[in-house]
Amino acid sequence: MAIVFEVIRQSRECAARIGRLSTPHGEVETPVFMPVGTQATVKTATPEELAEMGAGIILGNTYHLYLRPGPEIIARAGGLHKFMNWPRPILTDSGGYQIFSLAELRRLSEEGVEFKSHLDGSRHFLTPELVVKIQGELGSDIAMVLDECPPYPAEPGYIAASMARTTRWAARSLEALAAARSEQALFGIIQGGVYRHLREQHAREIAELGFPGLAIGGLSVGEPKETMYQVLDWVVPCLPPEKPRYLMGVGAPEDIFAAVARGVDMFDCVLPTRLARHGTVLTGRGRLTVRNAAYAADFSPLDEECGCYVCRNYTRAYIRHLLHAGEILGLRLTTWHNLHYMLDLMRKIRESIAAGTFIALWQEFQANYLQQRIDEPSCRT
Amino acid sequence: MAIVFEVIRQSRECAARIGRLSTPHGEVETPVFMPVGTQATVKTATPEELAEMGAGIILGNTYHLYLRPGPEIIARAGGLHKFMNWPRPILTDSGGYQIFSLAELRRLSEEGVEFKSHLDGSRHFLTPELVVKIQGELGSDIAMVLDECPPYPAEPGYIAASMARTTRWAARSLEALAAARSEQALFGIIQGGVYRHLREQHAREIAELGFPGLAIGGLSVGEPKETMYQVLDWVVPCLPPEKPRYLMGVGAPEDIFAAVARGVDMFDCVLPTRLARHGTVLTGRGRLTVRNAAYAADFSPLDEECGCYVCRNYTRAYIRHLLHAGEILGLRLTTWHNLHYMLDLMRKIRESIAAGTFIALWQEFQANYLQQRIDEPSCRT
Repeated sequence: MAIVFEVIRQSRECAARIGRLSTPHGEVETPVFMPVGTQATVKTATPEELAEMGAGIILGNTYHLYLRPGPEIIARAGGLHKFMNWPRPILTDSGGYQIFSLAELRRLSEEGVEFKSHLDGSRHFLTPELVVKIQGELGSDIAMVLDECPPYPAEPGYIAASMARTTRWAARSLEALAAARSEQALFGIIQGGVYRHLREQHAREIAELGFPGLAIGGLSVGEPKETMYQVLDWVVPCLPPEKPRYLMGVGAPEDIFAAVARGVDMFDCVLPTRLARHGTVLTGRGRLTVRNAAYAADFSPLDEECGCYVCRNYTRAYIRHLLHAGEILGLRLTTWHNLHYMLDLMRKIRESIAAGTFIALWQEFQANYLQQRIDEPSCRT
Repeated sequence: MAIVFEVIRQSRECAARIGRLSTPHGEVETPVFMPVGTQATVKTATPEELAEMGAGIILGNTYHLYLRPGPEIIARAGGLHKFMNWPRPILTDSGGYQIFSLAELRRLSEEGVEFKSHLDGSRHFLTPELVVKIQGELGSDIAMVLDECPPYPAEPGYIAASMARTTRWAARSLEALAAARSEQALFGIIQGGVYRHLREQHAREIAELGFPGLAIGGLSVGEPKETMYQVLDWVVPCLPPEKPRYLMGVGAPEDIFAAVARGVDMFDCVLPTRLARHGTVLTGRGRLTVRNAAYAADFSPLDEECGCYVCRNYTRAYIRHLLHAGEILGLRLTTWHNLHYMLDLMRKIRESIAAGTFIALWQEFQANYLQQRIDEPSCRT
């Protein structure tokens, strides 16, 4: 059940690198973008479509799946892969972020966290051990530890106490995994807010626990982009180079370039699917809100340079019509294109690292991806 | 642009028959079920998926497309086929039914019908000539005349006056088509309520006008099923045997058997897509409401005997989860299965007519399709 990670190529231009992550359900090349399948489905898409878009590993969410349909159902189905008919790798998020953003009336103690479900108000108590157990039932290739994701902004005193508990929870999680004789890969999560000494301290603490992979949490929660990049500059050098590095809940294309350049290997973000639901698509020339009246009689594809199924077969005028008419196919097509955009971007990034042209690709991206600014939805579920 | 219809095989068991309908966008075998693509999309599905389900001809709706996106947009796209990326035959409904059921404040005159859009309250005036012109712009393979679809129940005096006007409109429609030198196939529509003398009179009137196909309208509008079958018993013998017969807005599987047995060739109905949106699927053993709690841990396919994509890959438990979680994939899967059910049923019906076993198939259907009764949604858009 364990994973193996191998750095295949280290860029000479920057900290960017290409890696290979081998899991019980197959290999993926990094840097990788993981489409978010919160509720055992990547919104609107079938597994075959995800594969056609280029997805190699997807994300499931322990908080959501714990509440509905419940881990018993998924375990009886033979695990999350079988339940949702996705034969490739899955990473499950622990639910920490969701408990601290979606759930109500959460009460945090050393033992764990009590909360009321956002679905029906029912009360639940999750501990680090229980979260490990649930993810074992889900059968994901990579599980995440339960952590506290503190709000932004927060005082250094609060962050320090919180991350100390997150470290104790991380150690308990590993013990629970060992007690269950499970070989499921479990990643630790690094917190520490936007404070250098705390981030560096926590990175070392979590890294020392010996997890097979390390995630950077608590970012993309409202802080300026430059602050996020600054935190990466502090944290990544404290991480063991031979382990995969996962920046949770990020990101927008520009953030992915910035993070890959700093040595990050794995990403997830609801941005492409969420933008799609708002009628906005990602193109080589920036964001385009295809819902707008300007596209009512525009018979060109969403992105002239894109070769995806949507751009080969449909026009902006048709997709705009579908979105205005409230037709599901409209959401399918914008989602398909946006996920393809992200996955194709990662492919180009990997190829550029291999070719030694990553910085050139990044510069080209910056020159062409002229953002049509919109209200940015948060990058989390 | 014209169509050709050929009766390939007349059943010896009953009035059922197999036919071949050749259109500018290809051939279809009858009896045929036409999935409803009201707003230039068959709900949730791509054209490739429709083809995989077995769809040969689909329906578009003039009322809806006239209001949104408007025929100019579709004409500029190169017609409805290109606009929606469907290369096979399309039949467009005239909008008569929708105007008399969806639109507000309609005012009927000899000239045409004024109504307020259900979308924005804007006022419109449609005439038989304009409806022919719009369908010319849409470029459908088969267009329908504008008719009045009277309510049920209605007095014979009202029906007689209404159908007389529908006949005058039908004649005007043919003149408009001729004046435009169009070769688009235009079907006449037979009304007459539930009154034998009116139905027979109108069938002969409309048939005499020389349309290449004849539709039976004003049924499945609230009358008992037995009444609908009775009307077919009156009308079909008045129709020329060499022309295709289209029963509009029908139907449920049991109605399709009853109508095929009486010599009907073409059907359309929103039932499979609408049921799917309510979490109900059609199976060889009748309707199954997969939303129900009973299926929460049922890991069998929707229909054990079905070989469709959905039944090959997903369980009732998973689909129920998706529906409860409000996930679009749930609606996609129930819709896919239901459309496949209808299209596969038509295939079996055609094969049974060819093999001389249609009555046996019908009896088998009646024995097995034990309806789990639910509130029946109307079979119209």
